[in-house]
Formats: sequence, structure tokens, C-alpha cells
Amino acid sequence: MKLAFIGYGNVGRALARLLRQKRREFPFTITGIHTLRHGTAVDPAGLSHSQLEAPHFGPRMTSIDEFLDAACADIAVELTTLDPSHGEPAISHIRAAFARRMHVATANKGPIAHAYAALRDEAARAGLGFRFESAVMDGAPVFNLWNHCLPGVKVLGFTGVLNSTSKVVIDTMERGGSFEDGLAAARAMGITEADGAFDVEGWDSAAKTAALANVLMDAGTTPQQVSTRGITRLTPARLQEMARQGKTVRLISRGRRTRSGVSLRVRAEVLDRCDILAATPGTSNLILFHTDLMGTFGTVSIEPGVEQTAYGVFSDLVNLGQFRVAKPEG
Amino acid sequence: MKLAFIGYGNVGRALARLLRQKRREFPFTITGIHTLRHGTAVDPAGLSHSQLEAPHFGPRMTSIDEFLDAACADIAVELTTLDPSHGEPAISHIRAAFARRMHVATANKGPIAHAYAALRDEAARAGLGFRFESAVMDGAPVFNLWNHCLPGVKVLGFTGVLNSTSKVVIDTMERGGSFEDGLAAARAMGITEADGAFDVEGWDSAAKTAALANVLMDAGTTPQQVSTRGITRLTPARLQEMARQGKTVRLISRGRRTRSGVSLRVRAEVLDRCDILAATPGTSNLILFHTDLMGTFGTVSIEPGVEQTAYGVFSDLVNLGQFRVAKPEG
Repeated sequence: MKLAFIGYGNVGRALARLLRQKRREFPFTITGIHTLRHGTAVDPAGLSHSQLEAPHFGPRMTSIDEFLDAACADIAVELTTLDPSHGEPAISHIRAAFARRMHVATANKGPIAHAYAALRDEAARAGLGFRFESAVMDGAPVFNLWNHCLPGVKVLGFTGVLNSTSKVVIDTMERGGSFEDGLAAARAMGITEADGAFDVEGWDSAAKTAALANVLMDAGTTPQQVSTRGITRLTPARLQEMARQGKTVRLISRGRRTRSGVSLRVRAEVLDRCDILAATPGTSNLILFHTDLMGTFGTVSIEPGVEQTAYGVFSDLVNLGQFRVAKPEG
Repeated sequence: MKLAFIGYGNVGRALARLLRQKRREFPFTITGIHTLRHGTAVDPAGLSHSQLEAPHFGPRMTSIDEFLDAACADIAVELTTLDPSHGEPAISHIRAAFARRMHVATANKGPIAHAYAALRDEAARAGLGFRFESAVMDGAPVFNLWNHCLPGVKVLGFTGVLNSTSKVVIDTMERGGSFEDGLAAARAMGITEADGAFDVEGWDSAAKTAALANVLMDAGTTPQQVSTRGITRLTPARLQEMARQGKTVRLISRGRRTRSGVSLRVRAEVLDRCDILAATPGTSNLILFHTDLMGTFGTVSIEPGVEQTAYGVFSDLVNLGQFRVAKPEG
């Protein structure tokens, strides 16, 4: 199947390497790459390995529509940077792909946090697939787990430790560094944006919380509707005092069904250091699902990197490949 | 689809309740129950709810073959008690079902730990399904996760905290109780066999370790080939001394690929109390998979009970229902 990449940063490059590595078993072809900064590369016969390693971009095509028309792909792979406040331009990219009868895989949490139900329904009406495994937990099975492994189970709520930057900042302050030292450390690890405010103010967690609630609890919500407080009021002195008492802080996402709908919040919670929510090492993530039939269980991802995010998209692509076969008429 | 239950203990009864609860969405019928102690009940038109709640068993049929012939089922549900040393009689039950062109779902780790590759191949040759989600982690997605969500990923190894009884014994001794107090506590919780030796000597963990290695790493092994030491040499004094140093002990299952095959072991390991392997609350289980493409990630199951084990079998039955539809000729 032919793939059109929208965005080609670290995840896109890692995905291109993975696709090359697995090309015998899973024969995908990348027919186009469209980037804001570098321009556009298209070859309907498939871009070569050397093109994917060090692309020679031509001028940027004037619109996403022009790019998708030229790439002639079966699947659009949406990998642009998130704008947390509204999920654009990714939402428009996805709709442009659906309009051309392309399936979509994205690693971008914005469209899921802001417009999931609409996009899901548009895909279904068009008989197209829409996948986003990497949107919340860097490729560890979350959405595909619920798609494939838990028939008949209802999600009553969830508890997640989903933001790595805040963890690095807290660890740094517990060791006596400043808030800014922690942000610098996270930046050096490549896990945070330039200013880091999106992470430490809780908006990354709020977007993931909204995405989980939209997909698993049909919440029809947005990040703005998640009650969110970040870790910006924490100080090294306060964290070190808590550490002496065997406590620490984690930025926790919580969702639960209520009589009137779904209650969602992000908070810096004080936890026992040996609480499972606190015990995940380094930049690891953990999500626990609270359910009717399966009690509480969850997924943990230990120190994930860009390769794992790329793998999540890869698993979506394999899934979409099967989807196509299952469609009544190609 | 019609189901024949072999064994009807706590898991079987919980599964019957779950099937009744979900009968509209997932219309399964139980046409027979065969037990060693109570006898056999068969009705090819489907046993009634009152029969399933408080079965009036007739005399036990003389053989599993006679029972399966009478039950006329599509799927045999193997739920007998494990004999850890060889996996029988469950293995023979499964073969008797395959011989009648029945799919099989089992919650019994014995057949998977002792004879997985042979049973898998026999099922494949006959075009039948063989599922065992609850064999290792009480229903939390493990095997179905690997079947459905991780295309192209290779398991390099795993680390698991898979035995609940040993955890209860350790917790009891840390609080000053004796080894026997701990076993009595586990027995009172309904999570251990009459004498508990199977758990505390590590054989339950060894069977789960062999099962994981057989399915995920094609190890072709048995529990006897797992290097196993249990927790029987631990004392309250030693555990309390470790607790003062912030340490504890867990019975850990480890598997890893080596040049010559697969290395498997079960050990009572000393861990930091806040290690994620130690931090799972109560009788919870955790398994971490070490992989080529997805780094390390895993599944945690918080305080699972018999309902979760039953759900794992239920998810297998739903899976087998789809399997049947996918077969070229019924």
C-alpha cells in the first residue's frame, strides 16, 4: 500500500526506517512527504531509500490537497506538530485525506482530543479506516487493545501517568535542582517542546485525557473541558520535604463516568513513593483502566522513545492494510 | 455457538453467569457440563439458567469422549484443575475436542506449559481455534494482545510477577506473621490450593513461565526445564530486616533469548520496595515484555479475581466465534 507522509520530523524518519526494515513482510511504499519547513517530495512509484534518509525536497506544494492528489496514496500518515488549543492543522489534513478516500493513521493527539467523534463518523460513512495508536502512549497498545482484545467490556474510568516532562522536572527538583534545571533536562532528552509550558501546565496530559475519554468513553470533550492544574507551583523545598516522608508527586490524569456524563481532571497528586502510579522508572508511562467485567488492569510503557511512537503508527498501518482487504470493494 | 464445559468450579460458574449476562450481544449456549465430582449434565438444546446456577447432575459419563459426543458443541471449554507435573488430563481433553472438530478455550496453564506447540499445530492442521487467554494472568490481555496488536514485533524476553500466594505470604511475614499464617491468609482469600506448596515452591510461576516462553518465544519447554527456586527459605526476621532497609522480596519469572535458545528461571528476588516489580498492590500481577521494536512495555492486573479469569475465557470464546465465521467452510 502507498503512504503519504504529512510531516517528517523524528517520528516520521523513525517510521520510514522501520518500514524499510520490515518491507519484506509488510510491503508499504512511501509516495510522498509534505513538510512545512523543507518542502514537498513526491514520487508515485515510491520514494527511494536514499530519498527517505536525506530527502531532496522540492518546493512546498501550495496546499495539502495538491500534495495528496499528487501522492496517489492509500493511506495518509499525519505526523505534524500538535497545536494543543484546537487540533489544527491536523484535523483539516485528515479531512482532506478522507475526501480522497484515503485511510488515515496519525500519531497526533490533537485531532483525537478535539474532534474524535466527528472524524470517526466521517471515516465510517466513507468506509475508511482511522487509527491513532501512538496518540496517548507512544505506541504501547492502548486503542488497539480496546479494539481487539476486550469484547463486551465497558470502561468505567481510567488513571494515567502520561506526561514524561513533568516527571523529569519533579525528579530534578527532588535531587535539589531548580524547576528550570528540570525543564532543561527534559529538553536535552528530546521529550519536551521549546518552552515546556505545554507539559508542566498540564495541557499535554489534558489532551491525552480528552483523547482517552473521547475514544473509550464517548465523552465528546476537548482538552479545555478537562479540569487541569499542572506542577508549576511545586518547589524543590516542598518536594524534598515530601521525599523525607516517603512521598512524591506525579501529574495524574483521571477520568470516570458520572451520572451526568464523564468527569475528567489532571492534577499534581501527592503519592506514596511505592504507589504503582509513582513507581514507573524514568520517563515511563502507565495507564490503568477501571472496567465493569475486567476489574482494573492496564498498560505500562518503560522509557519509550521515538522508535516506539513510530512503531505505534506502523501497527496502525498494518491494521489499515487488513482493513482494506476486509472492505467489500477495494 | 454451543459450548461444552469440562470442569465447573469457581471459574466455570463465574463464566456461566457472565455468558448469561451478555447473552443478547454474544449468544452462546451451554449444552453440557462434565465434572469429576458431581457428574454430567447435558442438554443439546442448551442448559437452562436454573440448571447452570444449581446443576442437577446425572451420573458422570464414563469418558470425556462420550460427554463431548453427547454435548454436540462447537467449542469445548476446558476448566479442570491443573496437575502441574504433566498437564493431564487437560491435554487429553483438548485432543478429544479437536478429534470432534471442536474449537477449544481453556483457562488451564498446564497444556500450554507442557504441550503448546503440539496442540497449536494439531489445531492448525484441523482448521480449529485454540485459545487460553486466562492461563497466565487471570484474563488480562496477554496472548490476545500479542495475537492482535503487535505485528512484526519479536519478544526478546519477559519479566513477570505472576504468583499471588507468594506475595500474600511475604506480606504476612513482613508484618510479623509466620510462613504458615501467610499460607492460611492466601487460602482464606481463595487464591491457593489446599497445601500451597505448588505456589511457594515456585511451580505455579514455573508453569506460567514455560507457558509464556512456549507461546511468545516458541521455546518448546516444560515447567521442569525452568530453573526454579521458591520462597520457602524466607523467614519473618529476614524479611523484616530487609524492610528496614527499604527492600522486599518477590517471586519473579524471567525469560530471555540466548544464542542457544531460551533461558528461563523463577527466583525469589530482593527488590527495592519502590521497584515497579514490587509496587503492584495486593495480589496484583505484572508482566513486562522486552522486545525488538517496542522496547519494554507490559500489562498489569490489579487484584484480579475469579470474574477476571472467567472474562479471559469469555474473550477467547468471542474470538473463536469470529474464527468460525472466518473459516472457509463452517
